[in-house]
Amino acid sequence: MVRVALMGLGTVGGGVAELLAQHQEDIARRAGEGIEVAAALVRDPAKARALNGATPRLTTDPEEILGDKSISIVVEAMGGEEPALSLLKKALRRGKHVVTANKEVVSAHGQELFEAAMIHRCHLLFEGSVGGGIPIIAPLKHCLAANEIDEVSAVINGTTNFILTEMTVRGQDFAEVLGEAQARGYAEADPSADVDGLDAARKLAILASIAFNTRVTPAQVSTAGIRSVRAADTRYATELGRVIKLVATARRENGAVRVVVAPVMLPKDHPLAAVNGPDNAVLVRGQPVGRVVFSGPGAGRGATASAVVGDIMEIVRLRNRPDKSQCTCFTSRPVVAGDGRPAPFYARVRLPDGHGALERLTAAFAARSVALASVTRKSADTSGYEFVLVTRPADEGAVRAAIADGAADIGGSVALNVFRMEDGEMGTSR
Amino acid sequence: MVRVALMGLGTVGGGVAELLAQHQEDIARRAGEGIEVAAALVRDPAKARALNGATPRLTTDPEEILGDKSISIVVEAMGGEEPALSLLKKALRRGKHVVTANKEVVSAHGQELFEAAMIHRCHLLFEGSVGGGIPIIAPLKHCLAANEIDEVSAVINGTTNFILTEMTVRGQDFAEVLGEAQARGYAEADPSADVDGLDAARKLAILASIAFNTRVTPAQVSTAGIRSVRAADTRYATELGRVIKLVATARRENGAVRVVVAPVMLPKDHPLAAVNGPDNAVLVRGQPVGRVVFSGPGAGRGATASAVVGDIMEIVRLRNRPDKSQCTCFTSRPVVAGDGRPAPFYARVRLPDGHGALERLTAAFAARSVALASVTRKSADTSGYEFVLVTRPADEGAVRAAIADGAADIGGSVALNVFRMEDGEMGTSR
Repeated sequence: MVRVALMGLGTVGGGVAELLAQHQEDIARRAGEGIEVAAALVRDPAKARALNGATPRLTTDPEEILGDKSISIVVEAMGGEEPALSLLKKALRRGKHVVTANKEVVSAHGQELFEAAMIHRCHLLFEGSVGGGIPIIAPLKHCLAANEIDEVSAVINGTTNFILTEMTVRGQDFAEVLGEAQARGYAEADPSADVDGLDAARKLAILASIAFNTRVTPAQVSTAGIRSVRAADTRYATELGRVIKLVATARRENGAVRVVVAPVMLPKDHPLAAVNGPDNAVLVRGQPVGRVVFSGPGAGRGATASAVVGDIMEIVRLRNRPDKSQCTCFTSRPVVAGDGRPAPFYARVRLPDGHGALERLTAAFAARSVALASVTRKSADTSGYEFVLVTRPADEGAVRAAIADGAADIGGSVALNVFRMEDGEMGTSR
Repeated sequence: MVRVALMGLGTVGGGVAELLAQHQEDIARRAGEGIEVAAALVRDPAKARALNGATPRLTTDPEEILGDKSISIVVEAMGGEEPALSLLKKALRRGKHVVTANKEVVSAHGQELFEAAMIHRCHLLFEGSVGGGIPIIAPLKHCLAANEIDEVSAVINGTTNFILTEMTVRGQDFAEVLGEAQARGYAEADPSADVDGLDAARKLAILASIAFNTRVTPAQVSTAGIRSVRAADTRYATELGRVIKLVATARRENGAVRVVVAPVMLPKDHPLAAVNGPDNAVLVRGQPVGRVVFSGPGAGRGATASAVVGDIMEIVRLRNRPDKSQCTCFTSRPVVAGDGRPAPFYARVRLPDGHGALERLTAAFAARSVALASVTRKSADTSGYEFVLVTRPADEGAVRAAIADGAADIGGSVALNVFRMEDGEMGTSR
């Protein structure tokens, strides 16, 4: 029997305890050995917990786990930075293999955790930290290891994808759908980490570090969220044959790595465009494989438990042989924020009535050498007109500068939203 | 340096040699050790080969590889049953780890190969045998190992998917598109294994064996191909908001495993419906993970080389620790051919003019308790009328029996094609 301890017994920890109990026999046969939960670290042992069939011994003292030599694997399921990080490091120093789904800790402190794992000859696995139940860390690290990866693009935040999907389908505004998502448990009371793009940036940092063999941290990612997206934008996207998604992209550009999280207008036939609701998808493009896409449930008790228990089973399979090649960040590449590629851009602007406002704005685009593909008047009220401009492929900086120039000249135009329009080529397989 | 030998230096073997040479440095850093091609077994050493940067030593004598103790990994890249199978067994008996992308050998002889691998403490990896460059074997075997798998459904034959996609897009008939696919290298001179569904059945047998922990062989799979599909069928599918795909499905039903390869009409929003051209996709549904989909290039030199070299690197990572749990067929379940679930069915039939033919046919459906959702007259010529019938959910056996009954009664109605219409539920994530 391999003895596992859980640190945290909430959604993730509870799901892991349940899964290990429910599929006990099959898991033992597949892993080659039985796996049992020896103890669970909790804040309040008296709290009522509905754990289908699982009855772990509860403790409030981490030392009861860290000091127990019979426990060989520690699952960190607390979330948040501390005390999770300190406990993970302590567990590794005591020679315990570690599994975590904590993207906050892995993305910001991966380096020190891996160093501790190497020194103490332990495994450190974190499949559940990105993409919930979708196998992506191991496939990227091992199955696709022969490739030179060019790009990883992903819809990796279920909350924002749920909100954007609902906005598109129902024509509702951000605030309205957010309230409903909170009521249904798809968004947290404080939704900032999700809707402002930070959660996606953390996951992207993890994926980029693996894909490009260089350390990328969330702070290096150019990060924009979806708070500014309005029902009008999703409607205009539909009219343009597109859909707005919060896309996290990491790509190789010469010797550097580009990282960005931002709302993007994808063509309807783009492989990330069909990922709806709380689902996630990760697109990997590499040489010689071409384009591979992984999709599935990006979060949730069962999906995360699937990933975490899969990691536990992998450690059972491999634990007598420390893995020399765990940390794959063996190079150091410059990390550059933002996408950088020229693309068509969508700009929704409000222009005041009269004074040749539209002419001034389009002149500003021309002065910055940004060609326009279309200019469409969408609505009008007493204070002015709303227009949607679509550019020909251009640099994002030039587009934003043109809008700023035009606003200065007009003394009043306002860019309501500017979104990159990913071209269709990204969607082709070879 | 880990020394690898290639048996076969055609598309797959040549691609592997090239990839190992081209990404030599990165592969060494990721695998933790350098990997070199020590020798390649070929039929004709004098044959001109364009191997970008790779210059393996050629031999026509397998013993030069099998007898060389410095070679620890053998890559079988010959394809076909013999001599591949015999050489694989010999390699394992000599204590060499083995990588193969040979679905024919793995699907029909997996058991004896795994037994040899266990006895001689060798690894046997075959990621490239299913889904080309898409990581699916390792994710299913390891990342998703905690799940009870309910279903694996896949588009896993690139040739037929290319043909069906072209037929749908261009409105052309099977024979016409096949000729073009052969000219473009997407179909072989003898296309039987692809277009009759056998290739898909082999891959399905491999996936089902892993997913359900029981041995499934190609002979147990109910297998239909796409030769009978006509331009009319793809056009009517489009009219019904559907698309015809050759779908390979394995699912758990009580204690048994159901396996079937057949053309199916999928709803347009089904995750397998958007897989076009030579691409492949594998949908896995399990508890607790929900639905996960893997898609990408299903064949080709680069894609297969990616999978094979990924396997080689995995062996380098793990080779000092024989894997006790390699063969996951630890149960023995009954295997049942065919899908078995009630579903709506599409039937395209020709009815003779007069004699109340349509009434007789619909009466036959009623007599078998198969309710009809729609009956549409599509075309007419001097010999009769073509109709498309769509049933309400029914058993396939009852549908086929009704058509046979009707034909007998009319003395002339002909079922041109009968396809299952997968419902949308299969496409939902939870």
